Amino acid sequence: MVSWKNLDTLDAYKELLKKEDSVKLSEVLSGESGAKRVADYCVPMAAGLCYNYAAKKVNDAVLEKLAALAKEAQLTEKFRELYNGAVINTGEKRLVLHQLTRGQLGDDVIADGVNKRDFFTGEQKKIAEFAKKVHSGEITNEKGEKFTTVVQIGIGGSDLGPRAIYLALENWAAAHNTLKMQARFISNVDPDDAVGVLRGVDVAHALFIVVSKSGTTLETLTNESFVKDALEKAGLDVSKHMLAVTSETSPMAKNSGYLAAFFMDDYIGGRYSTSSAVGGAVLSLAFGPDIFARFLDGMAAEDKLAKEEDPLKNPAMLDALIGVYERNILGYPLTALLPYSQALSRFPAHLQQADMESNGKSVNRFGEPMNYKTGPVLFGEPGTNGQHSFYQLLHQGTDVIPLQFIGFKESQNEKDVEVKGSTSQTKLNANLAAQIVAFACGKEDENPNKWFDGERPSSVIVGEQLAPESCGALLSHYENKIMFQGFLWNVNSFDQEGVQLGKVLANRVLAHDTDGALKSFSELLGV
Amino acid sequence: MVSWKNLDTLDAYKELLKKEDSVKLSEVLSGESGAKRVADYCVPMAAGLCYNYAAKKVNDAVLEKLAALAKEAQLTEKFRELYNGAVINTGEKRLVLHQLTRGQLGDDVIADGVNKRDFFTGEQKKIAEFAKKVHSGEITNEKGEKFTTVVQIGIGGSDLGPRAIYLALENWAAAHNTLKMQARFISNVDPDDAVGVLRGVDVAHALFIVVSKSGTTLETLTNESFVKDALEKAGLDVSKHMLAVTSETSPMAKNSGYLAAFFMDDYIGGRYSTSSAVGGAVLSLAFGPDIFARFLDGMAAEDKLAKEEDPLKNPAMLDALIGVYERNILGYPLTALLPYSQALSRFPAHLQQADMESNGKSVNRFGEPMNYKTGPVLFGEPGTNGQHSFYQLLHQGTDVIPLQFIGFKESQNEKDVEVKGSTSQTKLNANLAAQIVAFACGKEDENPNKWFDGERPSSVIVGEQLAPESCGALLSHYENKIMFQGFLWNVNSFDQEGVQLGKVLANRVLAHDTDGALKSFSELLGV
Repeated sequence: MVSWKNLDTLDAYKELLKKEDSVKLSEVLSGESGAKRVADYCVPMAAGLCYNYAAKKVNDAVLEKLAALAKEAQLTEKFRELYNGAVINTGEKRLVLHQLTRGQLGDDVIADGVNKRDFFTGEQKKIAEFAKKVHSGEITNEKGEKFTTVVQIGIGGSDLGPRAIYLALENWAAAHNTLKMQARFISNVDPDDAVGVLRGVDVAHALFIVVSKSGTTLETLTNESFVKDALEKAGLDVSKHMLAVTSETSPMAKNSGYLAAFFMDDYIGGRYSTSSAVGGAVLSLAFGPDIFARFLDGMAAEDKLAKEEDPLKNPAMLDALIGVYERNILGYPLTALLPYSQALSRFPAHLQQADMESNGKSVNRFGEPMNYKTGPVLFGEPGTNGQHSFYQLLHQGTDVIPLQFIGFKESQNEKDVEVKGSTSQTKLNANLAAQIVAFACGKEDENPNKWFDGERPSSVIVGEQLAPESCGALLSHYENKIMFQGFLWNVNSFDQEGVQLGKVLANRVLAHDTDGALKSFSELLGV
Repeated sequence: MVSWKNLDTLDAYKELLKKEDSVKLSEVLSGESGAKRVADYCVPMAAGLCYNYAAKKVNDAVLEKLAALAKEAQLTEKFRELYNGAVINTGEKRLVLHQLTRGQLGDDVIADGVNKRDFFTGEQKKIAEFAKKVHSGEITNEKGEKFTTVVQIGIGGSDLGPRAIYLALENWAAAHNTLKMQARFISNVDPDDAVGVLRGVDVAHALFIVVSKSGTTLETLTNESFVKDALEKAGLDVSKHMLAVTSETSPMAKNSGYLAAFFMDDYIGGRYSTSSAVGGAVLSLAFGPDIFARFLDGMAAEDKLAKEEDPLKNPAMLDALIGVYERNILGYPLTALLPYSQALSRFPAHLQQADMESNGKSVNRFGEPMNYKTGPVLFGEPGTNGQHSFYQLLHQGTDVIPLQFIGFKESQNEKDVEVKGSTSQTKLNANLAAQIVAFACGKEDENPNKWFDGERPSSVIVGEQLAPESCGALLSHYENKIMFQGFLWNVNSFDQEGVQLGKVLANRVLAHDTDGALKSFSELLGV
């Protein structure tokens, strides 16, 4: 039986609060011992990735205390309860089953009279069969022509994850002749979003996937209506172009307006739904179901590592522990995620959702206030772009901001160019190595404007190449990191009550049921 | 003569530090007085915009002290010195002349024997003539066919601003039949960036603009080489497809490898260069020079407002003052920029650069350390998307994060759809009004998980429509806000020494001149 306790009640946390272990990065990273530290402070991940924390402000003494914290907080036991089907989402009284969509962790979970693993894998099979028929030309538009584009209509979790992963693997798929259809995404209720996307889409050869778990998401239904208008105006048979991804109990299920419907359920939160039908349909259509299956294999392999009790063998747990150490002991206010891979351009936006929506909470899982900070703001852009942008503040600003780098030895495409004796890929990684050391070690200078304090900690995840398996492992790593941090902060990472008030007030505005400031702001905005 | 003093030496700042004026948003925004406050706390901007700060934690007493701070810090005088050609960028000993590219502020500035206003406007004329010839078919590819796409190759300031403004006006231009060419952007040294962009571009009908002030930016020259390879492999005459935007003294100037070259100079920082040839060439080619001229007109009109001494009539100055109040008096750690307009999807990324690279400094303009925080981290995504993502933390997280909203009464396209009695645009703005009030006023609830503290301050800039003039006014507003904050913090907002160390170390890695941790990290990354 696990016990859920606030972070600041744990003995191991109190030990850490004594701050007996200060680590000076410019010292521990210098010379031969620095080189050895880089080799030692490295945890293997799935799919050839590794998590390197040599430039984090930890040493063996801190790591020991963090391991004690992990044990006292029962991280492994809590994860086991989660994947075996406990009601971890206490607020909404729901199981949390996204890991079941991709792996074989734990026991069978029977809920609502259904074996949930069979249910999720069954949906993947349905999607795979459907996608193959689309690709082979068995399912076509009403003229018998092949579909060339798939457009996902969804918002939040139905948009950010699938979009980030599509962009992450689009180049790779093109290079491996497995880009079956191009994918596009419509999310915002701003009509300019749908107009802009549709301007670049040949609707006669497009499949549209409407994604809403509840079947009632206002933005998504509005955009669905927008798209149906466009299809009708083009003289097309709307029902031949529309798919649904939803829950079996939603108004979108068993609806003849859709060519097909694929299902997920309430046990998968939107921000964790990329490995469910929410990501599965669009990614299987775009890349082929075999590629999506390889992506899921990468996730499953990384999930398995998250079961390790020893944080030094469990990269997600270690990453979570170091993050809490930085947030609550060292007091750093936020985190930057900086992938040195253009393909990961929207990966930070997805993790921004996954992380901030999960752990941006002020009460614990029992609804009690806490005396410590929880989830930090997460932001980021790809390097080297960021180097020419906001890195100035990261290097010399008045706040220390912990950094999470990601890099790959090889590019996704073989095409490259050698300029001044090195390829683009080599330049990219040279910059990444340089940044890690620049942030950590700094540089003294007689010109104070060119002085770098250093002592700005970072970790780096390194892989061979961003490919389906490594991409899956990467996503799983962060999902599990967020989960472990939620356990440590003792919050419910799987609800999002903070988004409700805005919805309620927006409906009041739309019903013209307003007064005071709400009325004035509405008028200011022409509503 | 102005005097440059640290913020904490100013009497008005010491007054503010007493924190005598606490404002409870749920009180000041309630009832009829709340409605009046929304109407009163609103400053007109150019191009029909207004800056509303009713949901900021200020009252008349605070505003008076902020006005005193503005006066004591000589914000107006410092701005005047800047646009009249003083050496404001003390670190690099340079004038700061980006306002001259778009307006008639102040005196003529003669530098290096040249009237700089004539120089900048002369370059715009050259660009306009060139663009017209491309659009009319007078300048074509070697087969005599029209160019249909323009690709900007640049990074940092040569990428983010022009890209953000292109995306901001692409839909508008399409709706007004003035989208002359589509624009694409290559920035990252990651070869996957260029491969991905080129996959979607018909190179035979594409013009490429290589943008580098120094003519030595490694990423940009590498990507230029990448593109030239692609042109050669397609059997095309490279020099017929390449343009340069650079400074007159760079190796890219007067180079027969380019069809044409347009110039800026060292007095315009990269992050302030959107209104120079850096943005002018790509935007004039994409939208036509008349549209770009209207964009500049919007900037000029907003610049003029920034000359106002009274902050209540000077939205950029007021925004700057309130930002400093939030950062240094109220102690909020960062800022979120949340445009309710999908067209502004990359505007936060541009301002992230402009703001963080300008004011992310730890020493003042004389190189002395300071005892207060300077520029905060800025991040953001468009609403309503963000509502389904990170807003959870903004509403209920353990940090209060000040918000900057942007909204427009009308969409850029007339196309819209009515669902459940309201259009998409109405839903969009209903959500924005609702969020302002939800963040400010919160909601009590017997379920602590559904309790909202509120008291999370926001401002909103509202316009009629995102069009060339209003888009220009918006950009100018933020550029000038950043400038005024730099004056208040007494930092040099126009250099970026913090990006140098990484460059130096990256060159060492590329030369294999490494040891210790730098060598180990390089090996880890396969370099």
